[in-house]
Amino acid sequence: MAQSSRILIKGGKVVNEDCSAFRDVYIENGKIADVGVNLQVPTGVRVIDATGKLVIPGGIDTHTHMELQFMGTKAVDDFHIGTKAALAGGTTMILDFVIPQKGKSLLEAYDRWRKTADPKVCCDYSLHVAVTWWSEQVKKEMEILAKERGVNSFKMFMAYKDVFMLHDSELHAAFSQCKDIGAVAQVHAENGDLIAEGARKMLSLGITGPEGHELCRPEEVEAEATQRAITIAHTVNSPLYVVHVMSKSAAKVVSSARRDGRVVFGEPIAAGLGTDGTHYWDKEWAHAAGFVMGPPLRPDPSTPGYLMDLLANDDLSVTGTDNCTFSVCQKALGKDDFTKIPNGVNGVEDRMSVIWEKGVHNGKMDENRFVAVTSSTAAKIFNLYPQKGRIAKNSDADVVVWDPKITRRISAKTHHQAVDYNIFEGMECHGVPVVTISRGKVVYENGQLQASPGHGRFIPREPFSEFVYKRIKQRDQVGRPTAVIREPYKGSIVSL
Amino acid sequence: MAQSSRILIKGGKVVNEDCSAFRDVYIENGKIADVGVNLQVPTGVRVIDATGKLVIPGGIDTHTHMELQFMGTKAVDDFHIGTKAALAGGTTMILDFVIPQKGKSLLEAYDRWRKTADPKVCCDYSLHVAVTWWSEQVKKEMEILAKERGVNSFKMFMAYKDVFMLHDSELHAAFSQCKDIGAVAQVHAENGDLIAEGARKMLSLGITGPEGHELCRPEEVEAEATQRAITIAHTVNSPLYVVHVMSKSAAKVVSSARRDGRVVFGEPIAAGLGTDGTHYWDKEWAHAAGFVMGPPLRPDPSTPGYLMDLLANDDLSVTGTDNCTFSVCQKALGKDDFTKIPNGVNGVEDRMSVIWEKGVHNGKMDENRFVAVTSSTAAKIFNLYPQKGRIAKNSDADVVVWDPKITRRISAKTHHQAVDYNIFEGMECHGVPVVTISRGKVVYENGQLQASPGHGRFIPREPFSEFVYKRIKQRDQVGRPTAVIREPYKGSIVSL
Amino acid sequence: MAQSSRILIKGGKVVNEDCSAFRDVYIENGKIADVGVNLQVPTGVRVIDATGKLVIPGGIDTHTHMELQFMGTKAVDDFHIGTKAALAGGTTMILDFVIPQKGKSLLEAYDRWRKTADPKVCCDYSLHVAVTWWSEQVKKEMEILAKERGVNSFKMFMAYKDVFMLHDSELHAAFSQCKDIGAVAQVHAENGDLIAEGARKMLSLGITGPEGHELCRPEEVEAEATQRAITIAHTVNSPLYVVHVMSKSAAKVVSSARRDGRVVFGEPIAAGLGTDGTHYWDKEWAHAAGFVMGPPLRPDPSTPGYLMDLLANDDLSVTGTDNCTFSVCQKALGKDDFTKIPNGVNGVEDRMSVIWEKGVHNGKMDENRFVAVTSSTAAKIFNLYPQKGRIAKNSDADVVVWDPKITRRISAKTHHQAVDYNIFEGMECHGVPVVTISRGKVVYENGQLQASPGHGRFIPREPFSEFVYKRIKQRDQVGRPTAVIREPYKGSIVSL
Amino acid sequence: MAQSSRILIKGGKVVNEDCSAFRDVYIENGKIADVGVNLQVPTGVRVIDATGKLVIPGGIDTHTHMELQFMGTKAVDDFHIGTKAALAGGTTMILDFVIPQKGKSLLEAYDRWRKTADPKVCCDYSLHVAVTWWSEQVKKEMEILAKERGVNSFKMFMAYKDVFMLHDSELHAAFSQCKDIGAVAQVHAENGDLIAEGARKMLSLGITGPEGHELCRPEEVEAEATQRAITIAHTVNSPLYVVHVMSKSAAKVVSSARRDGRVVFGEPIAAGLGTDGTHYWDKEWAHAAGFVMGPPLRPDPSTPGYLMDLLANDDLSVTGTDNCTFSVCQKALGKDDFTKIPNGVNGVEDRMSVIWEKGVHNGKMDENRFVAVTSSTAAKIFNLYPQKGRIAKNSDADVVVWDPKITRRISAKTHHQAVDYNIFEGMECHGVPVVTISRGKVVYENGQLQASPGHGRFIPREPFSEFVYKRIKQRDQVGRPTAVIREPYKGSIVSL
Repeated sequence: MAQSSRILIKGGKVVNEDCSAFRDVYIENGKIADVGVNLQVPTGVRVIDATGKLVIPGGIDTHTHMELQFMGTKAVDDFHIGTKAALAGGTTMILDFVIPQKGKSLLEAYDRWRKTADPKVCCDYSLHVAVTWWSEQVKKEMEILAKERGVNSFKMFMAYKDVFMLHDSELHAAFSQCKDIGAVAQVHAENGDLIAEGARKMLSLGITGPEGHELCRPEEVEAEATQRAITIAHTVNSPLYVVHVMSKSAAKVVSSARRDGRVVFGEPIAAGLGTDGTHYWDKEWAHAAGFVMGPPLRPDPSTPGYLMDLLANDDLSVTGTDNCTFSVCQKALGKDDFTKIPNGVNGVEDRMSVIWEKGVHNGKMDENRFVAVTSSTAAKIFNLYPQKGRIAKNSDADVVVWDPKITRRISAKTHHQAVDYNIFEGMECHGVPVVTISRGKVVYENGQLQASPGHGRFIPREPFSEFVYKRIKQRDQVGRPTAVIREPYKGSIVSL
Repeated sequence: MAQSSRILIKGGKVVNEDCSAFRDVYIENGKIADVGVNLQVPTGVRVIDATGKLVIPGGIDTHTHMELQFMGTKAVDDFHIGTKAALAGGTTMILDFVIPQKGKSLLEAYDRWRKTADPKVCCDYSLHVAVTWWSEQVKKEMEILAKERGVNSFKMFMAYKDVFMLHDSELHAAFSQCKDIGAVAQVHAENGDLIAEGARKMLSLGITGPEGHELCRPEEVEAEATQRAITIAHTVNSPLYVVHVMSKSAAKVVSSARRDGRVVFGEPIAAGLGTDGTHYWDKEWAHAAGFVMGPPLRPDPSTPGYLMDLLANDDLSVTGTDNCTFSVCQKALGKDDFTKIPNGVNGVEDRMSVIWEKGVHNGKMDENRFVAVTSSTAAKIFNLYPQKGRIAKNSDADVVVWDPKITRRISAKTHHQAVDYNIFEGMECHGVPVVTISRGKVVYENGQLQASPGHGRFIPREPFSEFVYKRIKQRDQVGRPTAVIREPYKGSIVSL
Repeated sequence: MAQSSRILIKGGKVVNEDCSAFRDVYIENGKIADVGVNLQVPTGVRVIDATGKLVIPGGIDTHTHMELQFMGTKAVDDFHIGTKAALAGGTTMILDFVIPQKGKSLLEAYDRWRKTADPKVCCDYSLHVAVTWWSEQVKKEMEILAKERGVNSFKMFMAYKDVFMLHDSELHAAFSQCKDIGAVAQVHAENGDLIAEGARKMLSLGITGPEGHELCRPEEVEAEATQRAITIAHTVNSPLYVVHVMSKSAAKVVSSARRDGRVVFGEPIAAGLGTDGTHYWDKEWAHAAGFVMGPPLRPDPSTPGYLMDLLANDDLSVTGTDNCTFSVCQKALGKDDFTKIPNGVNGVEDRMSVIWEKGVHNGKMDENRFVAVTSSTAAKIFNLYPQKGRIAKNSDADVVVWDPKITRRISAKTHHQAVDYNIFEGMECHGVPVVTISRGKVVYENGQLQASPGHGRFIPREPFSEFVYKRIKQRDQVGRPTAVIREPYKGSIVSL
Repeated sequence: MAQSSRILIKGGKVVNEDCSAFRDVYIENGKIADVGVNLQVPTGVRVIDATGKLVIPGGIDTHTHMELQFMGTKAVDDFHIGTKAALAGGTTMILDFVIPQKGKSLLEAYDRWRKTADPKVCCDYSLHVAVTWWSEQVKKEMEILAKERGVNSFKMFMAYKDVFMLHDSELHAAFSQCKDIGAVAQVHAENGDLIAEGARKMLSLGITGPEGHELCRPEEVEAEATQRAITIAHTVNSPLYVVHVMSKSAAKVVSSARRDGRVVFGEPIAAGLGTDGTHYWDKEWAHAAGFVMGPPLRPDPSTPGYLMDLLANDDLSVTGTDNCTFSVCQKALGKDDFTKIPNGVNGVEDRMSVIWEKGVHNGKMDENRFVAVTSSTAAKIFNLYPQKGRIAKNSDADVVVWDPKITRRISAKTHHQAVDYNIFEGMECHGVPVVTISRGKVVYENGQLQASPGHGRFIPREPFSEFVYKRIKQRDQVGRPTAVIREPYKGSIVSL
């Protein structure tokens, strides 16, 4: 596979979120130089024949945790392997999370993450930053991150009591600050107090296996926190982004809030769309433990289909993976106590295929909505559009040639991730990326990866994304409450 | 009006929650001795002709605060005047709240309340106790109150931050204890953190009038807390009783939870059913301030009708008043700052008429449902049924002769309460109590009160009300989660 | 088992819909003569020891079709066998349907049904009458039936196109007439046009087996008609009773309408509460065909639990069975074409046990709600209360001694019905009737039936049931639309 | 105002549905020739300075009835005046309805409409065709219209009994045919039977004024039909487009169906978004009558805001006007009987401003969603995208320069329509079209119209719009029901 800085993708059907059209795509210097019918290009340009195939914007995974240090161990997919796997699956950008320890500087954590990731990433990436505690320093650092470091999204935890969890008044303060600096407030929405009590109860009942993980934090615990976060965000007229919406009831909460006009976005993940929590009841411990993540997958088997219906209908907005992979020997840390199983599953490689299969192949969404939920809407929310998320002149040349007719079977035996199992093991998927182009370079083709560490770049993001903030700003102007003008009260006053 | 210990109510239509029938009611020694057609009674019995009228169980007001010391002043209706007014309105029992200060003994507070109330009450009463802080002592005192003092209901506040508010883990503990001792957990459901922030914000915007009271705690703040309380209660399989459901959205939350099988009861109050929060925008300060209570009445004018629809349909269960009256000169403490307006409105006298007018007269519920929501269901929940809440042999002779055809106009000029205004001023109500009998004695007749302080009795209530706890207990037996039986994991474990 | 006209049931817990209490029940001359503690009774009275057991009102099955001539054959349970089986299951009254052919006299059909049933019935019964066509004669006969024949409920079909189905304007007329004569309008709610098209389509796709029965009339076809019927009923302010609510979506429609204040009642049936439509996909034709009824059982396995939740919460009101039994050799008429499988399932015997098991045993409802949904509410709706549906002095002595602790396994091998299979085959049920008393006579005891044909009586029902009509009448008075008073228009008018 | 075939719009913010950007727009020969930053253009090009303004795709009004012959008279806005008014309001294309009489040829009606409109239209237009009766001929003509006449949308009436109304089985047939030919099935969703009964009832109660129009067809009559149409469409897997969604309950039905995955689109109209049905109760007859249209505007004043919320959230999809204008002297035909008031209101001129004011100015939607709901989505559904509905190279030069900062007050005194009143009289609107370009020609500028009859063109539309049909086709492939494979039944069969 010879590399060239100039590529012509011919004969394919270009799919954007608004429509599809048979167009050639000409790439030069990492950018899309032209999109048109029968493009004439210089000689020496590499030509990729996309006849019968789709040409789509590379996927954007809104939620990864590469090489995260968590629960005493470290996720096995690092920024190198993880981003390679992403490319193999048709994803050309990830948004990872900086998670500072409680009480520690956000800026320092950010710098550490950058230092780790920059030399390793094989595709473009950006960083959300978690707000795991609250203080004036945190508030100030958020502003610096937004203004100077290209961070326009901050995640707050309502779970992980005593570790990351913020209380309501802290959430109120954090959301307010997000709004002031033009960032997107994100939440992990589960009630941490109830999880702590639930875990205690399950262990006291002798339930130590992975099923206890779900039993101690059932979906109402997620739905409750989701409702609460939306309420808090609304009181400060702040936008809200709910990461990993895992249950029907939480999704319903998001959907209803949107119908009421709330600026809220829900992010289902590949795991939640492609499989379910019945696995926690599997008789084999290692199998069951492999699915442990927070919030848990749900045992109601109609959950994935429901989430996909809502994703298709724009009740849910974008898709990530929460990719945070621990191999079986790591999961085994919790073999006698589910609370010690490192939380996390795979997804960064398979997300696109899973969504195509469950979403497009089965008729719930069309190819345009597929592009929206895997790429364009994420780019809009996080203020990267149309640099990312669209096949158009001047956009970044993150492009995937997608064959909707061929199939592949997902397996840990063949995947490119470091983890030694795959939660989608055995799933047959229509829709396969046949060529992935990152920053104008073919990095995956014919099943072969040509990705190199450091090829990707950190992509800074400006605050006040128009997609998110136009309504917010207008409401601030027209919706401000006003006092009733009255004569002063002149009657008697009780003496105390 | 000569008193007699034996009374025959002749010719009326006896209305119970399940059906109505033309029956005579014979009362002897404070009890209903017989109910039947053409009862033959001894001579010397006083006969009340109820032809063309209804004979109903006396009302039970589930929620009052007589002479409460609150926000620096004291409610003007004391146990004497307040219970007299109740009788004039057809209510023959109240449930008042013992509210200990944070950090103080519940038992001592209980004793103090008893000492105050016992010599004053003109009708029967009972006491809920508020849990305003949490400790092992509180837990222990709850048990003593339930086992030895006749208290089977405890209220927890989610509002009044730093004063009464409990946090989620404390609510969890309190609900658990309620369940263990067979009590009904009650909540004041508003998010106290958000109210505190909201109040700050309104004052900073220069909104100091009564409208600020509603603006700082809009209905979503109530709905959120309601959802949260239900979630917490469900995790411990505890029953839940939501006091003063004031908004459509909170009522919807209760209604949906009941449909999902939760053992939850919602209590709208006379104020919420009979008037609305548009009054906070009234141009006259004193008028607006008179409606200040927490949670506030809602400015959406369709609220009262909606709450009544749900009450009619048993989505909401019982009705109280939150009667806690402050005269205008007391309200005036907050003339420059709505957060200082003593919270509270009237209702104990007018509740029955308001519900008849808005519920029965307009065709939303029939007379039987009226009896259920004003009396019988409260008796069931609080374990007083059928001693109270039913016209039946052996029940207490708390009986009202109700004339559905005549009308009266509510006014502070004519009411029997101590407060100097009335939130229902001017409302014309069909449905008027013409005779009220308490403990077998005619205490109100022809518009004249014959009630005397100390005539009423404290009514102790047994724990584990069957109406509330039968399902709870059965679920504990059949719904206990169980562990998956598995082979132990024998693979390798990562070394840390 | 010696019979006596006087019976004392001692030591049991008497369960009525409003509460339970340990009471003796004394029966004399077919009536309950007294209910009390430690009743003293004459010598010679037969005593039944109910210690540790419940004493409940006999069940009322609101929906049966004994020996119905349908789809070319006749239901095998006749009024004799069917009512015997009812008694064995704890049901002491059935409401059967008179179904006149299209174009034929309702009165003649009624007379025919009476003539058939009167000599055979082993328990009390009453008759609904179906309105299968529309004309002035039908309208007149409805009035006669209501005023002179004890019929206060009429069923209209929205399905069975060209056979029984009425169009919207006919439904409007029929509901209006029901209201004028004080009857309850009942509907079979499925869109007959869509079923006809659906059946054609399934056969054209080569789907001839029982699964086609469900596929051609999926639940949205039921929900649509339910919504339509409620809308029509509301335009005439007529009460509505939806027979056999079979699906979650139809139940939701009923539930929402009730919340909006509609006077509508939903009747789930034993089949829908106890089993589901996955059986239509069973590999054995005879098994699958055994479950064919209209509307079909639903393949969504969460349906029965959902219907039970709504029944527990009074979103659905009463329970019947649609008992209409055809043996396998009759079902076989449709072996090559599902449209020819006679529609109908069993239930009259097992209803009480199925509801106890799925409703009470699993904690969804308590024993009091069980009595309401199996007996009391039906009695109220159809104007038989408290003659039926309550253990109280002067009520009919239709009483069951129910043992909630023992279990039985349902099987066609042991049931008392004529049909040669049972849709609940193998279900283990807690809750067993140990003694059934009908009209004051022990008719079932220790597993032995002592019922004799003609022991039962036809029970005429008065129109204008208070439970149904009080709200309807009040709304007619207060809700009548009025014209705006205006000056006449005096401007120019276009000339045509 | 000199005209030029080449125009450069400089310095504006180009707003498409996916994002906005500061770009110049160069127009040549009726097409957009380029969109870019600092475009260099030939000399002699007319330059329009759009600094500080928005450059948006011209509006598409999905629903007009120019010069319709209806209820004995003819709409006063003909294709000439009506399209001129459209241009003045920023709308550059209308979709009008061909409505053949019952029993008459669709093709002939279509030809007649073309002949009327072609020489008069000042902007582009296209035609929906109504299916007012059913036969093999109708079915055949639908196919011809779709294949040869550029019609890909057909409207069926569920109202107007005996005039246009189709029954359920006819709707089933019509929807099936739409699907076979790749057209969009549209419905006027109101239950015609109930309207007929309702009208009779209101007149019998002496209610003859305009309020009777709403009272006889309350919103549940609309919601019912909407639910029914969706159900029918789903049984044939046909897309559905609900014209003029006028009520909260009908909108909820559409919204829920979309959440369930139905391919259904709801069209609110300017009237429903901008005003409400309280006007029917106006004391002045002429005022009240001016608002009469079918379905009626709703008296619930929260309706417009609710519809706008759902439109903002894509629960509702596109906006039309149902512009069908009758002057007061025509309305006066029904001065003594509301059923004779010609139905129809204005809107074609004011739609864009009303939606901007109520949608964008008040913060419910942003400028991009505004473009989607006024133009782009209509273009997609009706298969005109991106020829219409987008500012992009090669798209039609139907462009509007929109000033969001200035305001205008709507009034019949100043509007360009022929009708002598305006339902939005007095409404102040932010957001004003300052230049309108149709087919590359400036037709409106500085408040002056330069439009000439015949300037517009009929725009034929291809069937099988991708936006509508991609999911439909995929579902046909993957969702086809299949038969269970079984052994034949070999048991006995009853002999008849």
